[in-house]
Amino acid sequence: MRLVVIGTGSVGRSIAELAADYGHEIVGLADSAGAVIAEDGVDVADAFETKAADGTVGSADPADVFETSYDVLVEATTTVDDANPGFENAREALARDRDVVLANRDPVAKRFDELRELERNSDGTVKFGATVGGSLPIISILTDHRPSNIVSVRGVLNDTSNFILSRMAAEKLDYEHVLTEAKELGIADEDPSADVNGTDTAVKCTILSNMLSSYDESAIDDSITVDDVDTDGITNIPGSLLELAAQDSRTIRLIGEVNGNGVRVGPRLVPDDSPLAAEGAQNIVQIETTHSGTITLSGQGMDDHGTASAVFTDIDRL
Amino acid sequence: MRLVVIGTGSVGRSIAELAADYGHEIVGLADSAGAVIAEDGVDVADAFETKAADGTVGSADPADVFETSYDVLVEATTTVDDANPGFENAREALARDRDVVLANRDPVAKRFDELRELERNSDGTVKFGATVGGSLPIISILTDHRPSNIVSVRGVLNDTSNFILSRMAAEKLDYEHVLTEAKELGIADEDPSADVNGTDTAVKCTILSNMLSSYDESAIDDSITVDDVDTDGITNIPGSLLELAAQDSRTIRLIGEVNGNGVRVGPRLVPDDSPLAAEGAQNIVQIETTHSGTITLSGQGMDDHGTASAVFTDIDRL
Repeated sequence: MRLVVIGTGSVGRSIAELAADYGHEIVGLADSAGAVIAEDGVDVADAFETKAADGTVGSADPADVFETSYDVLVEATTTVDDANPGFENAREALARDRDVVLANRDPVAKRFDELRELERNSDGTVKFGATVGGSLPIISILTDHRPSNIVSVRGVLNDTSNFILSRMAAEKLDYEHVLTEAKELGIADEDPSADVNGTDTAVKCTILSNMLSSYDESAIDDSITVDDVDTDGITNIPGSLLELAAQDSRTIRLIGEVNGNGVRVGPRLVPDDSPLAAEGAQNIVQIETTHSGTITLSGQGMDDHGTASAVFTDIDRL
Repeated sequence: MRLVVIGTGSVGRSIAELAADYGHEIVGLADSAGAVIAEDGVDVADAFETKAADGTVGSADPADVFETSYDVLVEATTTVDDANPGFENAREALARDRDVVLANRDPVAKRFDELRELERNSDGTVKFGATVGGSLPIISILTDHRPSNIVSVRGVLNDTSNFILSRMAAEKLDYEHVLTEAKELGIADEDPSADVNGTDTAVKCTILSNMLSSYDESAIDDSITVDDVDTDGITNIPGSLLELAAQDSRTIRLIGEVNGNGVRVGPRLVPDDSPLAAEGAQNIVQIETTHSGTITLSGQGMDDHGTASAVFTDIDRL
């Protein structure tokens, strides 16, 4: 497929760099300050050298990428305000009946109903499998089994907090100590609040909930936003609580759950031999289906290459 | 889609009964002795009542299902000889440029090159995701990541032997005792040899290997068969060996592996906290990718409904 990629942070860069491996061509690549366009394929390595030197991938007007002969817009920008520029970029592509693959959560988490409306009025399709779970095909599996056949989705959706809690439990270290370690390893950002206060998990659960409740074209538009999610984080878990849990063959993990009763995020006791007790910076998700029992997936969720592979999976589905 | 389903054993029955749930219509349903055909949709419940009473789903000639206005042939027969009737049914559909979704391993495991040749000469596509892993989207993930990006596929692909080994280890019971229990629970067949001697796992690994090595249309046809797989089963594992492993925080599981060095099946030591040590009648598979780390999947592999859901996933991909 011929792709336009907007957003040249680490995720957009991974997508642009791997596109050829997956049999695709980049015809337009844009960041906030500029763009490079080439109908016979952008030289991606060149573009990122230019970015390193000049601060932007090229001298073209970013808006011009929408004039190319692209098949799919890959949206990987960081939100400045109100789910934009991501939402507006999606609107632009859908207005031209092009498909949109989102690696950017905000349009789906914050403006789901509007996005669905734009999609209904377009020949283009919006896909967002890359917004939850990185390389784990969570949304793909939910789509394949049909939302009506999904009982619940439950698990660890934030690598950072899973690393922190599992290190605290395994090494009997306190939160602050492990948080510092996580920052040194690049597993936690300088400002880790969204990860440790449960918001990142809540945003992902919001997306899953919206996807499951809206699948039926005739369904009332009753999407939720992250504000509707009952969310607790991991910043108040003393080591003593982990030790108490261990005495009972349990541990504590930050679990998000989406089911018929709604969406909740918070620290939960899990049996220490449960897949959900797996340690380290990874996602572990259990999808309970009506016909096929429970499917468990685990792997690195935060990896840019994983997110990129999920984008390519979505492109294949178009 | 409009489906013809051939094969009315438990898998074919699950597929026929669930088709409407997934938005599909059965226009033809056949077993070895008869068929029922209805362009406006077969009454599946009726057909199975007829089968219970008369031994076959209907009085039509089974060959007539190929004359209906179907989109996809779902092949779920049991092999009588030389991958037939499955292979011939696939040939029949491909000769008419129809798509084929296999829930039947033998055409893929035994006559892969011939099947690919028929597919090349047809507008129809052959899919066989349902032949490995039940509801676990193994082949789907391999396809999405591209075979060239797969380093290895490794894991537990046979529920029966996993149940037996994990019960032996957990309860310190001997093989014969647990095998009897497995038969009583319907987890082992009366003749469990294919499960316990490693053949079932070897057949599935053969399919994965063939899928990965043949993806490139220009690749030399160098498929393997189960005879090419170095296979050992679980019938000679004394309880003492499991206890020895446990002292070293390990256990033993029947593991199949497909990688650049070939395909091997046999009992392997796994760390007892590894996902591969999970207990009970399930499959656990680890897919190592070049770009996205390792993805681990687990769930029930043997379930007919799981296999049926995998068939519907493949139909969606057409």
